[in-house]
Amino acid sequence: MKTYLDCMSCFVRQALEAARMATKDERVQRKVLDSVMGRLSTLSFNATPPEIAQVVHGLVKEVTGDSDPYREIKKKQNQIALNLFPRIKEMVTGSDDRLLGAVKMAIAGNVIDLGVQDEVKDIEGSIYDAFSSDLTIDSYDEFREVLTHSNLVLYLGDNAGEIVFDKILIEELKMIKRMEIVFVVREKPIINDATMEDAQFVGMEELTTVLSNGSDAPATILSQCSQEVCGLFSRADMIIAKGQGNYESLNEEHRVFFLLKAKCPVIARDLAVNVGDMILKGQKV
Amino acid sequence: MKTYLDCMSCFVRQALEAARMATKDERVQRKVLDSVMGRLSTLSFNATPPEIAQVVHGLVKEVTGDSDPYREIKKKQNQIALNLFPRIKEMVTGSDDRLLGAVKMAIAGNVIDLGVQDEVKDIEGSIYDAFSSDLTIDSYDEFREVLTHSNLVLYLGDNAGEIVFDKILIEELKMIKRMEIVFVVREKPIINDATMEDAQFVGMEELTTVLSNGSDAPATILSQCSQEVCGLFSRADMIIAKGQGNYESLNEEHRVFFLLKAKCPVIARDLAVNVGDMILKGQKV
Repeated sequence: MKTYLDCMSCFVRQALEAARMATKDERVQRKVLDSVMGRLSTLSFNATPPEIAQVVHGLVKEVTGDSDPYREIKKKQNQIALNLFPRIKEMVTGSDDRLLGAVKMAIAGNVIDLGVQDEVKDIEGSIYDAFSSDLTIDSYDEFREVLTHSNLVLYLGDNAGEIVFDKILIEELKMIKRMEIVFVVREKPIINDATMEDAQFVGMEELTTVLSNGSDAPATILSQCSQEVCGLFSRADMIIAKGQGNYESLNEEHRVFFLLKAKCPVIARDLAVNVGDMILKGQKV
Repeated sequence: MKTYLDCMSCFVRQALEAARMATKDERVQRKVLDSVMGRLSTLSFNATPPEIAQVVHGLVKEVTGDSDPYREIKKKQNQIALNLFPRIKEMVTGSDDRLLGAVKMAIAGNVIDLGVQDEVKDIEGSIYDAFSSDLTIDSYDEFREVLTHSNLVLYLGDNAGEIVFDKILIEELKMIKRMEIVFVVREKPIINDATMEDAQFVGMEELTTVLSNGSDAPATILSQCSQEVCGLFSRADMIIAKGQGNYESLNEEHRVFFLLKAKCPVIARDLAVNVGDMILKGQKV
Protein backbone atom coordinates (compact mmCIF):
# COMPACT_ATOMS: atom_id res chain seq x y z
CA MET A 1 0.00 0.00 0.00
CA LYS A 2 1.33 3.42 -0.78
CA THR A 3 2.04 5.92 1.96
CA TYR A 4 -0.51 8.70 2.13
CA LEU A 5 0.33 12.27 3.11
CA ASP A 6 -1.92 11.78 6.15
CA CYS A 7 0.55 9.18 7.48
CA MET A 8 3.22 11.83 8.14
CA SER A 9 1.62 13.40 11.23
CA CYS A 10 0.93 9.89 12.51
CA PHE A 11 4.63 8.94 12.20
CA VAL A 12 5.56 12.05 14.19
CA ARG A 13 2.98 11.21 16.87
CA GLN A 14 4.19 7.60 16.99
CA ALA A 15 7.85 8.64 17.26
CA LEU A 16 6.99 10.75 20.31
CA GLU A 17 5.06 7.86 21.85
CA ALA A 18 8.05 5.55 21.37
CA ALA A 19 10.54 8.15 22.59
CA ARG A 20 8.51 8.61 25.77
CA MET A 21 8.59 4.87 26.39
CA ALA A 22 12.38 4.85 25.96
CA THR A 23 13.23 7.87 28.11
CA LYS A 24 11.76 10.45 30.46
CA ASP A 25 14.31 13.05 29.31
CA GLU A 26 12.39 15.67 27.30
CA ARG A 27 15.55 16.87 25.57
CA VAL A 28 16.14 13.40 24.17
CA GLN A 29 12.45 13.12 23.19
CA ARG A 30 12.83 16.45 21.37
CA LYS A 31 15.98 15.17 19.63
CA VAL A 32 14.02 12.14 18.43
CA LEU A 33 11.28 14.36 16.98
CA ASP A 34 13.81 16.63 15.28
CA SER A 35 15.66 13.74 13.73
CA VAL A 36 12.42 12.00 12.65
CA MET A 37 10.92 15.12 11.07
CA GLY A 38 14.21 15.95 9.42
CA ARG A 39 14.39 12.46 7.90
CA LEU A 40 10.71 12.30 6.91
CA SER A 41 11.11 15.54 4.98
CA THR A 42 13.65 13.86 2.69
CA LEU A 43 12.17 10.34 2.34
CA SER A 44 10.68 8.92 -0.82
CA PHE A 45 6.94 8.41 -0.72
CA ASN A 46 7.28 5.34 -2.89
CA ALA A 47 7.97 3.46 0.32
CA THR A 48 5.08 1.70 2.03
CA PRO A 49 4.01 2.90 5.51
CA PRO A 50 5.83 0.07 7.35
CA GLU A 51 9.03 0.80 5.41
CA ILE A 52 8.85 4.38 6.66
CA ALA A 53 7.87 3.22 10.17
CA GLN A 54 10.99 1.06 10.15
CA VAL A 55 13.13 4.13 9.46
CA VAL A 56 11.26 6.20 12.07
CA HIS A 57 11.58 3.62 14.83
CA GLY A 58 15.18 2.96 13.82
CA LEU A 59 15.85 6.63 14.57
CA VAL A 60 14.04 6.35 17.91
CA LYS A 61 16.30 3.43 18.85
CA GLU A 62 19.43 5.23 17.62
CA VAL A 63 18.74 8.53 19.40
CA THR A 64 17.48 7.08 22.68
CA GLY A 65 19.93 4.17 22.76
CA ASP A 66 17.02 1.85 23.66
CA SER A 67 16.75 -1.08 21.23
CA ASP A 68 13.28 -2.05 22.48
CA PRO A 69 11.22 0.86 23.89
CA TYR A 70 8.05 -1.24 23.94
CA ARG A 71 9.63 -4.05 26.00
CA GLU A 72 7.52 -3.49 29.11
CA ILE A 73 4.29 -2.77 27.31
CA LYS A 74 4.66 -5.96 25.25
CA LYS A 75 5.10 -8.02 28.40
CA LYS A 76 2.01 -6.39 29.84
CA GLN A 77 0.01 -7.02 26.67
CA ASN A 78 1.06 -10.68 26.58
CA GLN A 79 0.08 -11.06 30.21
CA ILE A 80 -3.30 -9.35 29.74
CA ALA A 81 -4.04 -11.60 26.76
CA LEU A 82 -2.95 -14.75 28.62
CA ASN A 83 -5.25 -13.79 31.49
CA LEU A 84 -8.09 -13.45 29.01
CA PHE A 85 -7.26 -16.76 27.32
CA PRO A 86 -9.64 -19.10 29.21
CA ARG A 87 -12.59 -16.76 28.66
CA ILE A 88 -11.92 -16.12 24.96
CA LYS A 89 -11.26 -19.82 24.33
CA GLU A 90 -14.63 -20.56 25.92
CA MET A 91 -16.34 -18.00 23.66
CA VAL A 92 -14.82 -19.67 20.59
CA THR A 93 -15.66 -23.23 21.61
CA GLY A 94 -19.19 -22.05 22.40
CA SER A 95 -19.67 -20.62 18.88
CA ASP A 96 -22.07 -22.24 16.41
CA ASP A 97 -19.22 -22.23 13.89
CA ARG A 98 -16.02 -22.62 15.90
CA LEU A 99 -13.69 -21.81 12.98
CA LEU A 100 -15.56 -18.57 12.25
CA GLY A 101 -15.52 -17.80 15.98
CA ALA A 102 -11.74 -18.31 16.08
CA VAL A 103 -11.22 -16.18 12.96
CA LYS A 104 -13.22 -13.35 14.49
CA MET A 105 -11.36 -13.71 17.79
CA ALA A 106 -8.01 -13.55 15.97
CA ILE A 107 -9.15 -10.32 14.31
CA ALA A 108 -10.54 -9.03 17.61
CA GLY A 109 -7.08 -9.57 19.16
CA ASN A 110 -5.74 -7.06 16.66
CA VAL A 111 -7.23 -4.28 18.84
CA ILE A 112 -4.13 -4.70 21.01
CA ASP A 113 -1.89 -2.38 19.03
CA LEU A 114 0.06 0.50 20.42
CA GLY A 115 1.29 1.50 17.00
CA VAL A 116 -2.13 2.94 16.35
CA GLN A 117 -3.78 3.48 19.72
CA ASP A 118 -2.15 5.51 22.48
CA GLU A 119 -3.55 3.32 25.16
CA VAL A 120 -5.15 -0.05 25.25
CA LYS A 121 -8.40 1.18 26.69
CA ASP A 122 -10.78 -1.38 27.94
CA ILE A 123 -9.18 -4.19 25.92
CA GLU A 124 -11.68 -6.69 27.21
CA GLY A 125 -14.69 -4.62 26.15
CA SER A 126 -13.17 -3.95 22.70
CA ILE A 127 -12.58 -7.66 22.21
CA TYR A 128 -16.11 -8.67 23.10
CA ASP A 129 -17.50 -5.90 20.87
CA ALA A 130 -15.31 -7.04 17.97
CA PHE A 131 -16.16 -10.70 18.49
CA SER A 132 -19.87 -9.97 18.32
CA SER A 133 -19.54 -7.81 15.16
CA ASP A 134 -19.95 -9.01 11.59
CA LEU A 135 -17.04 -9.03 9.17
CA THR A 136 -17.31 -6.02 6.83
CA ILE A 137 -15.16 -7.66 4.19
CA ASP A 138 -16.05 -11.33 4.50
CA SER A 139 -14.03 -13.95 2.61
CA TYR A 140 -14.79 -16.61 5.19
CA ASP A 141 -16.25 -19.13 2.69
CA GLU A 142 -13.15 -18.84 0.52
CA PHE A 143 -10.92 -19.04 3.62
CA ARG A 144 -12.61 -22.27 4.69
CA GLU A 145 -12.47 -23.71 1.18
CA VAL A 146 -8.74 -23.00 0.67
CA LEU A 147 -8.01 -24.33 4.14
CA THR A 148 -9.52 -27.74 3.42
CA HIS A 149 -7.03 -28.15 0.53
CA SER A 150 -3.98 -26.89 2.39
CA ASN A 151 -1.15 -28.92 3.86
CA LEU A 152 1.21 -26.03 4.59
CA VAL A 153 -0.06 -22.79 6.12
CA LEU A 154 2.14 -19.74 6.68
CA TYR A 155 0.74 -17.58 9.48
CA LEU A 156 2.28 -14.09 9.64
CA GLY A 157 1.85 -12.73 13.17
CA ASP A 158 1.48 -9.12 14.18
CA ASN A 159 1.57 -7.79 17.75
CA ALA A 160 2.44 -8.98 21.21
CA GLY A 161 -0.70 -9.87 23.15
CA GLU A 162 -2.53 -10.46 19.88
CA ILE A 163 -0.51 -13.66 19.36
CA VAL A 164 -2.42 -15.28 22.22
CA PHE A 165 -5.53 -14.89 20.09
CA ASP A 166 -3.65 -16.35 17.13
CA LYS A 167 -3.01 -19.45 19.22
CA ILE A 168 -6.74 -20.04 19.45
CA LEU A 169 -7.17 -19.80 15.67
CA ILE A 170 -4.20 -22.12 15.10
CA GLU A 171 -5.73 -24.65 17.49
CA GLU A 172 -8.96 -24.56 15.47
CA LEU A 173 -7.08 -24.83 12.15
CA LYS A 174 -5.36 -27.95 13.42
CA MET A 175 -8.74 -29.45 14.33
CA ILE A 176 -10.06 -28.97 10.78
CA LYS A 177 -7.36 -31.18 9.30
CA ARG A 178 -3.82 -32.39 9.77
CA MET A 179 -1.47 -29.73 8.38
CA GLU A 180 1.80 -27.96 8.96
CA ILE A 181 1.43 -24.41 10.27
CA VAL A 182 4.44 -22.11 10.50
CA PHE A 183 3.96 -19.03 12.66
CA VAL A 184 6.22 -16.10 11.73
CA VAL A 185 7.38 -13.28 14.02
CA ARG A 186 9.62 -10.24 13.48
CA GLU A 187 13.38 -10.80 13.79
CA LYS A 188 14.05 -7.81 16.08
CA PRO A 189 11.87 -5.60 18.29
CA ILE A 190 9.88 -2.95 16.41
CA ILE A 191 6.98 -1.06 18.05
CA ASN A 192 4.92 -3.68 19.90
CA ASP A 193 5.25 -6.33 17.20
CA ALA A 194 5.69 -9.91 18.37
CA THR A 195 9.18 -11.39 18.31
CA MET A 196 10.46 -14.87 19.17
CA GLU A 197 10.61 -13.85 22.83
CA ASP A 198 6.88 -13.07 22.82
CA ALA A 199 6.08 -16.31 21.00
CA GLN A 200 8.01 -18.22 23.68
CA PHE A 201 6.34 -16.26 26.48
CA VAL A 202 2.82 -17.16 25.33
CA GLY A 203 3.73 -20.79 24.54
CA MET A 204 3.33 -20.60 20.76
CA GLU A 205 6.28 -22.95 20.24
CA GLU A 206 4.50 -25.75 22.08
CA LEU A 207 1.64 -25.46 19.59
CA THR A 208 3.40 -25.05 16.24
CA THR A 209 6.66 -24.18 14.45
CA VAL A 210 7.74 -20.58 15.00
CA LEU A 211 10.19 -18.75 12.74
CA SER A 212 11.48 -15.20 12.86
CA ASN A 213 11.43 -13.46 9.50
CA GLY A 214 14.87 -11.84 9.35
CA SER A 215 13.54 -8.28 9.32
CA ASP A 216 12.77 -5.60 11.91
CA ALA A 217 10.07 -3.92 9.82
CA PRO A 218 6.61 -3.78 11.45
CA ALA A 219 5.35 -5.77 8.47
CA THR A 220 6.38 -8.54 6.10
CA ILE A 221 8.65 -6.91 3.55
CA LEU A 222 9.68 -9.91 1.46
CA SER A 223 12.87 -8.29 0.16
CA GLN A 224 14.04 -8.10 3.79
CA CYS A 225 12.93 -11.58 4.84
CA SER A 226 15.12 -14.64 5.26
CA GLN A 227 15.42 -17.17 2.42
CA GLU A 228 13.57 -19.67 4.59
CA VAL A 229 10.55 -17.39 5.08
CA CYS A 230 10.55 -16.36 1.41
CA GLY A 231 10.67 -20.02 0.43
CA LEU A 232 7.74 -20.82 2.70
CA PHE A 233 5.87 -17.83 1.28
CA SER A 234 6.23 -19.37 -2.22
CA ARG A 235 5.49 -22.95 -1.19
CA ALA A 236 2.65 -22.45 1.30
CA ASP A 237 -0.81 -23.54 0.22
CA MET A 238 -2.31 -20.77 2.28
CA ILE A 239 -0.99 -17.53 3.78
CA ILE A 240 -2.69 -15.84 6.71
CA ALA A 241 -1.47 -12.31 7.42
CA LYS A 242 -2.51 -10.47 10.56
CA GLY A 243 -2.82 -6.71 11.07
CA GLN A 244 -2.32 -3.46 9.22
CA GLY A 245 1.44 -3.69 8.76
CA ASN A 246 1.25 -7.03 6.97
CA TYR A 247 -1.59 -5.69 4.81
CA GLU A 248 0.33 -2.53 3.96
CA SER A 249 3.37 -4.54 2.88
CA LEU A 250 1.64 -7.47 1.13
CA ASN A 251 -1.64 -6.10 -0.26
CA GLU A 252 -0.42 -6.53 -3.83
CA GLU A 253 0.45 -10.20 -3.32
CA HIS A 254 -2.12 -12.80 -4.27
CA ARG A 255 -2.87 -15.89 -2.20
CA VAL A 256 -2.91 -13.98 1.09
CA PHE A 257 -5.82 -13.86 3.53
CA PHE A 258 -5.65 -10.61 5.49
CA LEU A 259 -7.17 -10.61 8.96
CA LEU A 260 -7.27 -7.17 10.55
CA LYS A 261 -9.22 -4.41 12.13
CA ALA A 262 -9.11 -1.15 10.15
CA LYS A 263 -7.63 1.07 12.80
CA CYS A 264 -6.91 4.34 11.00
CA PRO A 265 -8.76 6.48 8.44
CA VAL A 266 -6.09 5.92 5.77
CA ILE A 267 -6.33 2.13 5.72
CA ALA A 268 -10.11 2.31 6.09
CA ARG A 269 -10.25 4.47 2.95
CA ASP A 270 -7.88 2.11 1.12
CA LEU A 271 -10.17 -0.83 1.96
CA ALA A 272 -13.37 1.22 1.43
CA VAL A 273 -14.59 0.41 4.95
CA ASN A 274 -15.07 2.38 8.18
CA VAL A 275 -12.54 2.75 10.97
CA GLY A 276 -13.08 -0.11 13.43
CA ASP A 277 -14.41 -2.54 10.83
CA MET A 278 -13.35 -6.20 10.97
CA ILE A 279 -11.78 -7.53 7.78
CA LEU A 280 -11.15 -11.02 6.40
CA LYS A 281 -9.98 -10.26 2.89
CA GLY A 282 -9.14 -13.09 0.51
CA GLN A 283 -8.28 -13.22 -3.16
CA LYS A 284 -11.74 -12.91 -4.62
CA VAL A 285 -12.70 -9.60 -2.96
CA MET B 1 2.07 28.93 26.95
CA LYS B 2 5.02 26.79 26.01
CA THR B 3 4.91 24.46 23.05
CA TYR B 4 4.60 20.82 24.03
CA LEU B 5 6.20 17.99 22.07
CA ASP B 6 2.66 16.74 21.35
CA CYS B 7 2.04 19.89 19.28
CA MET B 8 4.48 18.79 16.56
CA SER B 9 2.32 16.08 14.98
CA CYS B 10 -0.61 18.50 15.15
CA PHE B 11 1.34 21.14 13.21
CA VAL B 12 2.12 18.54 10.53
CA ARG B 13 -1.54 17.53 10.36
CA GLN B 14 -2.63 21.16 10.18
CA ALA B 15 -0.11 21.97 7.44
CA LEU B 16 -1.57 19.18 5.31
CA GLU B 17 -5.11 20.40 5.96
CA ALA B 18 -4.12 23.92 4.86
CA ALA B 19 -2.15 22.65 1.85
CA ARG B 20 -5.18 20.67 0.69
CA MET B 21 -7.33 23.78 0.90
CA ALA B 22 -4.79 25.69 -1.18
CA THR B 23 -4.20 23.11 -3.93
CA LYS B 24 -5.35 19.77 -5.24
CA ASP B 25 -1.82 18.99 -6.51
CA GLU B 26 -0.44 16.20 -4.29
CA ARG B 27 3.14 17.01 -5.26
CA VAL B 28 2.71 20.55 -3.93
CA GLN B 29 1.00 19.20 -0.79
CA ARG B 30 4.00 16.90 -0.31
CA LYS B 31 6.38 19.85 -0.80
CA VAL B 32 4.51 21.72 1.92
CA LEU B 33 4.89 18.80 4.34
CA ASP B 34 8.58 18.40 3.55
CA SER B 35 9.29 22.06 4.07
CA VAL B 36 7.19 22.20 7.27
CA MET B 37 8.81 19.09 8.80
CA GLY B 38 12.25 20.31 7.77
CA ARG B 39 11.64 23.65 9.46
CA LEU B 40 9.99 22.22 12.59
CA SER B 41 13.03 20.02 13.14
CA THR B 42 15.20 23.12 13.54
CA LEU B 43 12.85 25.48 15.43
CA SER B 44 13.31 26.58 19.03
CA PHE B 45 10.74 25.20 21.43
CA ASN B 46 10.86 28.41 23.42
CA ALA B 47 8.32 29.73 20.94
CA THR B 48 4.62 29.52 21.85
CA PRO B 49 2.34 27.31 19.72
CA PRO B 50 0.89 30.25 17.75
CA GLU B 51 4.39 31.53 16.98
CA ILE B 52 5.21 28.14 15.49
CA ALA B 53 1.82 28.00 13.73
CA GLN B 54 2.66 31.35 12.15
CA VAL B 55 5.86 29.87 10.71
CA VAL B 56 4.07 26.70 9.57
CA HIS B 57 1.25 28.52 7.81
CA GLY B 58 3.74 31.02 6.38
CA LEU B 59 5.43 28.06 4.69
CA VAL B 60 2.07 26.78 3.43
CA LYS B 61 1.42 30.18 1.83
CA GLU B 62 4.93 30.38 0.40
CA VAL B 63 4.99 26.88 -1.11
CA THR B 64 1.43 26.89 -2.47
CA GLY B 65 1.44 30.55 -3.53
CA ASP B 66 -1.98 30.94 -1.90
CA SER B 67 -2.01 33.78 0.65
CA ASP B 68 -5.35 32.70 2.12
CA PRO B 69 -6.08 28.96 1.85
CA TYR B 70 -9.03 29.21 4.25
CA ARG B 71 -10.76 31.97 2.22
CA GLU B 72 -13.75 29.89 1.16
CA ILE B 73 -14.18 28.06 4.45
CA LYS B 74 -14.16 31.36 6.35
CA LYS B 75 -16.92 32.73 4.12
CA LYS B 76 -18.91 29.57 4.71
CA GLN B 77 -18.38 29.75 8.47
CA ASN B 78 -19.45 33.39 8.57
CA GLN B 79 -22.56 32.57 6.57
CA ILE B 80 -23.47 29.57 8.76
CA ALA B 81 -23.09 31.71 11.88
CA LEU B 82 -25.14 34.57 10.39
CA ASN B 83 -27.90 32.11 9.54
CA LEU B 84 -27.85 30.92 13.16
CA PHE B 85 -27.86 34.48 14.51
CA PRO B 86 -31.62 34.99 15.08
CA ARG B 87 -31.91 31.67 16.93
CA ILE B 88 -28.83 32.16 19.14
CA LYS B 89 -29.83 35.78 19.89
CA GLU B 90 -33.23 34.48 21.01
CA MET B 91 -31.56 31.90 23.29
CA VAL B 92 -29.48 34.65 24.92
CA THR B 93 -32.36 37.09 25.38
CA GLY B 94 -34.41 34.25 26.84
CA SER B 95 -31.74 33.46 29.47
CA ASP B 96 -32.38 34.20 33.16
CA ASP B 97 -29.05 36.03 33.19
CA ARG B 98 -28.60 37.51 29.71
CA LEU B 99 -24.95 38.50 30.25
CA LEU B 100 -24.05 34.97 31.38
CA GLY B 101 -26.03 33.60 28.43
CA ALA B 102 -24.08 35.84 26.05
CA VAL B 103 -20.74 34.87 27.62
CA LYS B 104 -21.55 31.19 27.20
CA MET B 105 -22.73 31.75 23.64
CA ALA B 106 -19.47 33.57 22.82
CA ILE B 107 -17.54 30.59 24.16
CA ALA B 108 -19.86 28.18 22.34
CA GLY B 109 -19.05 30.02 19.08
CA ASN B 110 -15.43 28.98 19.61
CA VAL B 111 -16.38 25.47 18.41
CA ILE B 112 -16.12 26.89 14.90
CA ASP B 113 -12.40 26.36 14.50
CA LEU B 114 -10.71 24.58 11.68
CA GLY B 115 -7.31 25.00 13.24
CA VAL B 116 -8.25 22.24 15.64
CA GLN B 117 -11.11 20.31 14.08
CA ASP B 118 -10.94 18.84 10.61
CA GLU B 119 -14.54 19.50 9.93
CA VAL B 120 -17.17 21.62 11.52
CA LYS B 121 -19.47 18.75 12.31
CA ASP B 122 -22.93 19.53 13.38
CA ILE B 123 -22.05 23.10 14.38
CA GLU B 124 -25.57 23.79 15.50
CA GLY B 125 -25.68 20.78 17.85
CA SER B 126 -22.26 21.60 19.31
CA ILE B 127 -23.37 25.15 20.00
CA TYR B 128 -26.55 24.14 21.78
CA ASP B 129 -24.62 21.56 23.80
CA ALA B 130 -22.01 24.13 24.79
CA PHE B 131 -24.63 26.75 25.63
CA SER B 132 -26.36 24.36 27.99
CA SER B 133 -23.10 23.30 29.71
CA ASP B 134 -21.64 24.81 32.86
CA LEU B 135 -18.35 26.70 32.81
CA THR B 136 -15.56 24.45 34.13
CA ILE B 137 -13.37 27.40 35.03
CA ASP B 138 -15.88 30.05 36.08
CA SER B 139 -14.72 33.62 36.68
CA TYR B 140 -18.12 35.05 35.78
CA ASP B 141 -18.60 36.97 39.04
CA GLU B 142 -15.21 38.64 38.61
CA PHE B 143 -15.96 39.26 34.92
CA ARG B 144 -19.22 41.03 35.79
CA GLU B 145 -17.59 43.01 38.61
CA VAL B 146 -14.68 44.27 36.47
CA LEU B 147 -17.11 45.10 33.69
CA THR B 148 -19.18 47.45 35.86
CA HIS B 149 -16.05 49.56 36.49
CA SER B 150 -14.79 49.56 32.89
CA ASN B 151 -15.00 52.37 30.37
CA LEU B 152 -12.68 50.89 27.77
CA VAL B 153 -12.86 47.21 26.82
CA LEU B 154 -10.43 45.56 24.40
CA TYR B 155 -12.04 42.50 22.80
CA LEU B 156 -9.53 40.21 21.03
CA GLY B 157 -11.40 38.18 18.42
CA ASP B 158 -10.53 34.71 17.22
CA ASN B 159 -12.11 32.91 14.26
CA ALA B 160 -14.39 33.68 11.34
CA GLY B 161 -17.93 32.56 12.10
CA GLU B 162 -17.23 32.81 15.80
CA ILE B 163 -17.22 36.62 15.52
CA VAL B 164 -20.98 36.53 14.91
CA PHE B 165 -21.27 35.10 18.42
CA ASP B 166 -18.96 37.85 19.70
CA LYS B 167 -21.41 40.40 18.32
CA ILE B 168 -24.07 39.07 20.67
CA LEU B 169 -21.80 39.39 23.70
CA ILE B 170 -20.77 42.90 22.66
CA GLU B 171 -24.45 43.89 22.36
CA GLU B 172 -25.04 42.65 25.90
CA LEU B 173 -21.92 44.41 27.24
CA LYS B 174 -23.21 47.67 25.79
CA MET B 175 -26.53 47.16 27.55
CA ILE B 176 -24.81 46.81 30.95
CA LYS B 177 -23.31 50.29 30.74
CA ARG B 178 -22.07 52.96 28.36
CA MET B 179 -18.50 52.04 27.39
CA GLU B 180 -16.05 51.98 24.50
CA ILE B 181 -15.40 48.51 23.08
CA VAL B 182 -12.64 47.94 20.54
CA PHE B 183 -12.83 44.65 18.66
CA VAL B 184 -9.47 43.41 17.34
CA VAL B 185 -8.89 41.14 14.35
CA ARG B 186 -5.72 39.69 12.75
CA GLU B 187 -3.95 41.91 10.19
CA LYS B 188 -3.58 39.24 7.49
CA PRO B 189 -5.23 35.88 6.83
CA ILE B 190 -3.94 33.01 8.98
CA ILE B 191 -5.82 29.70 9.27
CA ASN B 192 -9.50 30.59 9.72
CA ASP B 193 -8.85 33.53 12.03
CA ALA B 194 -11.07 36.57 11.55
CA THR B 195 -9.64 39.53 9.63
CA MET B 196 -11.10 42.96 8.84
CA GLU B 197 -12.87 41.44 5.83
CA ASP B 198 -14.72 38.98 8.09
CA ALA B 199 -15.60 41.72 10.56
CA GLN B 200 -17.08 43.75 7.72
CA PHE B 201 -18.92 40.74 6.30
CA VAL B 202 -20.74 40.06 9.59
CA GLY B 203 -21.43 43.74 10.30
CA MET B 204 -19.14 44.11 13.33
CA GLU B 205 -18.19 47.63 12.27
CA GLU B 206 -21.78 48.82 12.59
CA LEU B 207 -21.76 47.70 16.22
CA THR B 208 -18.36 48.83 17.49
CA THR B 209 -14.85 50.00 16.57
CA VAL B 210 -12.81 47.33 14.77
CA LEU B 211 -9.01 47.39 14.55
CA SER B 212 -6.61 44.95 12.96
CA ASN B 213 -3.64 44.10 15.15
CA GLY B 214 -0.72 44.40 12.75
CA SER B 215 0.22 40.71 12.93
CA ASP B 216 -0.61 37.56 11.00
CA ALA B 217 -0.09 35.22 13.96
CA PRO B 218 -3.13 33.11 14.93
CA ALA B 219 -2.94 34.80 18.33
CA THR B 220 -2.14 38.13 19.96
CA ILE B 221 1.65 38.31 20.09
CA LEU B 222 2.15 41.78 21.56
CA SER B 223 5.68 42.18 20.18
CA GLN B 224 4.16 41.87 16.69
CA CYS B 225 1.13 44.11 17.28
CA SER B 226 0.71 47.71 16.15
CA GLN B 227 1.49 50.55 18.56
CA GLU B 228 -2.22 51.39 18.61
CA VAL B 229 -3.24 47.89 19.74
CA CYS B 230 -0.39 47.72 22.29
CA GLY B 231 -1.44 51.12 23.64
CA LEU B 232 -5.04 49.95 23.98
CA PHE B 233 -3.81 46.77 25.67
CA SER B 234 -2.11 48.92 28.34
CA ARG B 235 -4.93 51.45 28.74
CA ALA B 236 -7.97 49.17 28.60
CA ASP B 237 -9.89 48.65 31.83
CA MET B 238 -10.77 45.16 30.72
CA ILE B 239 -9.40 42.73 28.13
CA ILE B 240 -11.47 39.89 26.73
CA ALA B 241 -9.48 37.31 24.75
CA LYS B 242 -11.24 34.65 22.72
CA GLY B 243 -9.93 31.20 21.82
CA GLN B 244 -6.89 28.98 22.26
CA GLY B 245 -4.46 31.09 20.22
CA ASN B 246 -5.04 34.20 22.33
CA TYR B 247 -4.71 32.11 25.49
CA GLU B 248 -1.50 30.49 24.28
CA SER B 249 0.06 33.88 23.53
CA LEU B 250 -1.27 35.89 26.51
CA ASN B 251 -1.69 33.42 29.38
CA GLU B 252 1.12 35.07 31.33
CA GLU B 253 -0.46 38.52 31.08
CA HIS B 254 -2.65 39.69 33.94
CA ARG B 255 -5.90 41.59 33.47
CA VAL B 256 -7.11 39.28 30.69
CA PHE B 257 -10.35 37.31 30.72
CA PHE B 258 -9.94 34.23 28.54
CA LEU B 259 -13.09 32.83 26.92
CA LEU B 260 -12.50 29.53 25.16
CA LYS B 261 -13.34 25.92 24.70
CA ALA B 262 -10.42 23.58 25.48
CA LYS B 263 -10.16 21.88 22.12
CA CYS B 264 -7.01 19.77 22.38
CA PRO B 265 -5.43 17.54 25.07
CA VAL B 266 -2.42 19.83 25.44
CA ILE B 267 -4.35 22.96 26.35
CA ALA B 268 -6.76 20.93 28.48
CA ARG B 269 -3.79 19.62 30.48
CA ASP B 270 -2.34 23.13 30.78
CA LEU B 271 -5.66 24.37 32.19
CA ALA B 272 -6.25 21.20 34.23
CA VAL B 273 -9.62 20.61 32.55
CA ASN B 274 -11.02 18.07 30.08
CA VAL B 275 -11.13 18.43 26.31
CA GLY B 276 -14.40 20.14 25.39
CA ASP B 277 -14.71 22.09 28.65
CA MET B 278 -15.92 25.71 28.57
CA ILE B 279 -13.59 28.21 30.17
CA LEU B 280 -14.02 31.77 31.46
CA LYS B 281 -10.71 32.37 33.18
CA GLY B 282 -10.05 35.66 34.95
CA GLN B 283 -7.23 36.92 37.14
CA LYS B 284 -8.21 35.27 40.38
CA VAL B 285 -8.27 31.67 39.11
